[in-house]
Amino acid sequence: MKYGRFEQKERIFFGIVEDDQVIELEGSIFDSYKPTSTRHALSALKTLVPCEPPNFYCAGINYLAHIEWGNKRKGTNTQPPEKADIGYRSQNALSPTGAPIVIPADAPGPIQYEGELVAVIGKRAKNLTEANALSCVLGYTLGNDVSDRGWQKSDRTLWRAKNCDSWKPMGPFIATGLDPMNLQIETHIDGKLVSSYSTSKMIFSLQHYIEKITKYITLLPGDVIWTGVDNATIPDLEDGMVCDIVQKDIGVLRNPVVQAN
Amino acid sequence: MKYGRFEQKERIFFGIVEDDQVIELEGSIFDSYKPTSTRHALSALKTLVPCEPPNFYCAGINYLAHIEWGNKRKGTNTQPPEKADIGYRSQNALSPTGAPIVIPADAPGPIQYEGELVAVIGKRAKNLTEANALSCVLGYTLGNDVSDRGWQKSDRTLWRAKNCDSWKPMGPFIATGLDPMNLQIETHIDGKLVSSYSTSKMIFSLQHYIEKITKYITLLPGDVIWTGVDNATIPDLEDGMVCDIVQKDIGVLRNPVVQAN
Repeated sequence: MKYGRFEQKERIFFGIVEDDQVIELEGSIFDSYKPTSTRHALSALKTLVPCEPPNFYCAGINYLAHIEWGNKRKGTNTQPPEKADIGYRSQNALSPTGAPIVIPADAPGPIQYEGELVAVIGKRAKNLTEANALSCVLGYTLGNDVSDRGWQKSDRTLWRAKNCDSWKPMGPFIATGLDPMNLQIETHIDGKLVSSYSTSKMIFSLQHYIEKITKYITLLPGDVIWTGVDNATIPDLEDGMVCDIVQKDIGVLRNPVVQAN
Repeated sequence: MKYGRFEQKERIFFGIVEDDQVIELEGSIFDSYKPTSTRHALSALKTLVPCEPPNFYCAGINYLAHIEWGNKRKGTNTQPPEKADIGYRSQNALSPTGAPIVIPADAPGPIQYEGELVAVIGKRAKNLTEANALSCVLGYTLGNDVSDRGWQKSDRTLWRAKNCDSWKPMGPFIATGLDPMNLQIETHIDGKLVSSYSTSKMIFSLQHYIEKITKYITLLPGDVIWTGVDNATIPDLEDGMVCDIVQKDIGVLRNPVVQAN
């Protein structure tokens, strides 16, 4: 099943996506809902980010090939993390499929995509174990953790480097019933495949993160956990490019890149 | 004027606090509201956190005497920040006045309070300047940035060190019409004054933070900016203590400390 969040004439609602149709839902997929008799053509609706997370967690560094590529590029010697310390991103930066990734005029760059699998929490959860961790997950969507590598080096926190408005495209839909540890995540720039990796390569599994987080923190319905990126994340994003993050069951998260003056 | 957010018989509403009375409001203080004819005794209501922030910003290090005290205590040489890089905390950890600060059984400690002034954003804002920065602020509340100094050293991010459930008491109310750069913030442990500092000592003013943030980030109604702490933050928090953060116009944010087994 695929859930989405949509806008039509300033009205916002959840829906179930079936091919090019959307069954409108009454209520919230994070609480209770029932299908209505209203069907829309998907193309007639504006697709919004599929949820507005109360908390926005991210794994940050979670794949070896991405670390090795970064070390080679920068001449650094970053080691894989020894433990799963969860990080944060900020809700202001969320942006739906179709919306532009806007590069501020003074961003030093390079600006890069990071196509990631995102777990969407469906139920309040505390003290889960790896064995039952996935019981709190509603489904999976895609995220593009757009980053300015210059600011990433110069700023004490990652605020501008990661959280400028529009730098966290997320969507298009939430797909249920997937195995998060065995999905192929692709990135296409201007229609050309530039990265493809399997989530089986995560250093710390989603289940491990959920066990560790919920030892101290209550996960809430609508919270998201971005699970990190593998591989090189080139070419750099530039004005006029179109960046697609793709997973066959979730769909295509497509965002054009716009350089602000 | 003082705004609060209250619960009565599972009904949640905003109110205007006048001495020991609450005028119930219809609507949201972050959108539009009107006073109703319903008055409550403050003592008959449960006081909630005054807002549920979409984004939770914090200054982190923003006072010299706190840095100097930390350096003396730890034998370190932390320098004042050269620029105002905003940080983040996480909404899961918010907790109202009266609720316990729960120390997890395996927290290495020491656990310390940090009593802070919190700016509550009232209006969507982008590209403000220091001169008009405060135009987006609805008012001010208090926050206690409870921290585990052990985890603060050992973890790559500050997730557990700062964001365990219940570790971000915030409240009790939002006071309007204050000068954020000239307030006295006190902390009392078990009724005894242990810290008093003036917000005039901020390294970077609230106005400076707002100008800098809104160059890249849209502030949203209900967002909060925690502005940092001055002074030593001792004694360490221990089971059974009661920690009050106090500012005369905002009120008393009071939280007991509970050690989990």
